[in-house]
Amino acid sequence: MTDTLSFALARDAGAPLADQIVRAVAARVDERLLRPGARMPSIRRFAASHGVSPFTVVASYDRLVAQGYLESRRGAGFFVRERQAQARGVPTAQPAQPAPVPAELDIAWLVRSMFRQAPLGLAPGSGVLPADWLDGPAVANALRALSRQNCDGLLSYGSPHGFLPLRQQLQLTLAELEIEAGPEQLVTTLGVTQALDLVARAFCQPGDTVLVDDPAWFLMFGSFAAMGLKVVGVPRLADGPDLARLAELAALHRPRLFVINSVLHNPSSTSVSAAKAFQVLRLAEQHDFLVVEDDIYCGLHPGGATRLAALDGLRRVIYLGGFSKSMAANLRVGFIATSRERAALLADRKMLATLSTSDIGERVVYKILAEGHHRKHLDRVRGRLDAARPGALRRLEALGMRVDPAPAAGMFLWVDAGTDTNALTARAMQHDLLLAPGSLFSPSQQPSTRMRLNLAALQDPGVWRFLEGRGD
Amino acid sequence: MTDTLSFALARDAGAPLADQIVRAVAARVDERLLRPGARMPSIRRFAASHGVSPFTVVASYDRLVAQGYLESRRGAGFFVRERQAQARGVPTAQPAQPAPVPAELDIAWLVRSMFRQAPLGLAPGSGVLPADWLDGPAVANALRALSRQNCDGLLSYGSPHGFLPLRQQLQLTLAELEIEAGPEQLVTTLGVTQALDLVARAFCQPGDTVLVDDPAWFLMFGSFAAMGLKVVGVPRLADGPDLARLAELAALHRPRLFVINSVLHNPSSTSVSAAKAFQVLRLAEQHDFLVVEDDIYCGLHPGGATRLAALDGLRRVIYLGGFSKSMAANLRVGFIATSRERAALLADRKMLATLSTSDIGERVVYKILAEGHHRKHLDRVRGRLDAARPGALRRLEALGMRVDPAPAAGMFLWVDAGTDTNALTARAMQHDLLLAPGSLFSPSQQPSTRMRLNLAALQDPGVWRFLEGRGD
Repeated sequence: MTDTLSFALARDAGAPLADQIVRAVAARVDERLLRPGARMPSIRRFAASHGVSPFTVVASYDRLVAQGYLESRRGAGFFVRERQAQARGVPTAQPAQPAPVPAELDIAWLVRSMFRQAPLGLAPGSGVLPADWLDGPAVANALRALSRQNCDGLLSYGSPHGFLPLRQQLQLTLAELEIEAGPEQLVTTLGVTQALDLVARAFCQPGDTVLVDDPAWFLMFGSFAAMGLKVVGVPRLADGPDLARLAELAALHRPRLFVINSVLHNPSSTSVSAAKAFQVLRLAEQHDFLVVEDDIYCGLHPGGATRLAALDGLRRVIYLGGFSKSMAANLRVGFIATSRERAALLADRKMLATLSTSDIGERVVYKILAEGHHRKHLDRVRGRLDAARPGALRRLEALGMRVDPAPAAGMFLWVDAGTDTNALTARAMQHDLLLAPGSLFSPSQQPSTRMRLNLAALQDPGVWRFLEGRGD
Repeated sequence: MTDTLSFALARDAGAPLADQIVRAVAARVDERLLRPGARMPSIRRFAASHGVSPFTVVASYDRLVAQGYLESRRGAGFFVRERQAQARGVPTAQPAQPAPVPAELDIAWLVRSMFRQAPLGLAPGSGVLPADWLDGPAVANALRALSRQNCDGLLSYGSPHGFLPLRQQLQLTLAELEIEAGPEQLVTTLGVTQALDLVARAFCQPGDTVLVDDPAWFLMFGSFAAMGLKVVGVPRLADGPDLARLAELAALHRPRLFVINSVLHNPSSTSVSAAKAFQVLRLAEQHDFLVVEDDIYCGLHPGGATRLAALDGLRRVIYLGGFSKSMAANLRVGFIATSRERAALLADRKMLATLSTSDIGERVVYKILAEGHHRKHLDRVRGRLDAARPGALRRLEALGMRVDPAPAAGMFLWVDAGTDTNALTARAMQHDLLLAPGSLFSPSQQPSTRMRLNLAALQDPGVWRFLEGRGD
């Protein structure tokens, strides 16, 4: 019973703790993780286990009773209420995949949908390119070549640092970005997601603050919150973070990490200027925090952008990369580049978390990179995005939706829809259309008129039919 | 600097905190994670960051100065001392893989070696079967078949629960063990290691106690300690845990989890009797803890053993399985079977930690299981182990080494060498031979006369030359 209630509360998320508790418990009842008739923990026990005041719990339970989620039985405590399934707007049958749409917009549900659903044409909120934009044949070829080799290497555990030839190949790739990192400075991971998880587990303690871009990639907010870290957003301007705010927040919170998309920032597709990159590093030095540079969109940039890791020589910057956006998300191959000492520590952490990663995906990526065709594939993808961008911008403008700043590269448009995008997203769901509202990218889940659109998905006329009719 | 010092202290590990600090800092100096001349954190800062008393830190630093690892500079604090590399017995050249052998037996070094080294003939301490015992051709065939299919499914993120056809196949496999679990009750993981990591992160808070078998699989001790969990061992007898001690420890520590190898326990290869399995479940009910049943050695058992998960119907038991021991370690495919509610929670946790796992390994395992040849492969492996066991037992007995109880199945012998196996392991290292001393499997790292031997590795005459000469 209490297991399903082990959610993390974000103390600095802007939303009052009671709101968060109400939302979390209600979502668990809606999703039937808490079954009708189940007994809730006592006020005192819930307060102790979540580190909140009993008053907060009383207020939360009362609101949940008012909303019909819980009932109070005299002398016996609080119980999940029996409700008519119809009244809650969920189907009475076994919920099939995808999960039923909740009546109100639920961020947790939206995040799950974002990854559970294959990126269809009608998922303009998706963060990945559709299958036909990616390099399926190259993946198939690499798998075929792999199956013809001696597979003995696949029978034993790999090195915790990762498949050595891939790390040697990455050394060359990184050198082109002026980042010098030997194979012993590289640790492969299950995508950038595991890289962020390992870095936070290695360098942070519960209660520590992590700075992130605001807006930024949403999954990391939940991941950090689950570790008991405070997530604080630094406003992101067209040329990088708001430096004055960064200095203030660094002085105030003494953060351990600042996680930043330097190049083709998600969701705005803007990049940090060289001058700002240098200032970010100065502030990192001054306030003694590490910079985690997430460069997952690297392959979609035409070149010439400044990496913090290149300026800093991987002293204070931990650089993350991966191939989910440009090659294939399902390979689950990412990597960390850092100092030799930190790489050894992170390889140990990786061993504790997953022993090792599989060499299969890493061998596939190695083959594709080593063959040299990947460059041409990236040129083609960039060409398609460049061809799609002006038309999409014009059409959005005609709808009164601003994209400011208009990006020169990348797959995302960070659109001001001029209307609350939480409501717009809820309407879009009625049309089986997955949007990514601005609130998703806000460290404090602030409602917003912004949303992220995926240029590749905007090729589908169905998306425009919805946007032009606004879903009504 | 402080990053390399972010190690976890095991408060209940038996070893005093100061000993742990001295060992951890010394190991980091030996491994050059802490460089000569580097400044140590102040006493107060170290104490605060590790949650220990400043007195403990003073005592630790003093001993490190005495041992020549640190030096104190008046008014300036403590620094890592410049030492002659020769004096420490490490090579002056860049350490190559495998890492240099430290002068004294270092558990962390040993654990890393256990997984970094390919399982050679001369690794009788290894926990996996050598490549020629595993099913390389089946893996290669599955990869080839996979490369001929439409690879579009590999281009997008998979489902956080894991590749559906594999989960449907696992439903059938588990039904043969009388464990009923639908696909929505299954979550795939990067081996049992990630399964344990996700379960502990989902159901425990820092400070909670986790019970484990004593002896048990060593990597889990470090993984739990890094999460701030207390690890307490329950003595393992020939037919399962010591129930009286389990009841006492459960009452004393109010643990959240009891992690148990019910079948072919690592390292003893013994299994829990049906009667004991039932009693363990009763104690779990009485003391309100979850049982995590790690059945990674399932494929090596001829059949007929009782699973706790079968008795309990996955109400209080979380069942873990995987294919590293019987198919190929590098596929990194494991799974969790639990209630539908817990599976949904764990899939969310998995999403936060690694987004998803790669379908590739899961498709390979699915193909191999679905083709039906895997059963025959397992029969052959069991046959080879059964053929090797009696001779090995006789030969060990002739050396005065007892194996009690002598197992009837499985790949391990839990041998009483009649001498301190830490010392024996240190001597073995001089002969490039990797042993697994009993201390490694002890939750409190107690020195022991036991060690774990891998039957497959005992086929190599070099191992016997060492054991018979005792490395002198």
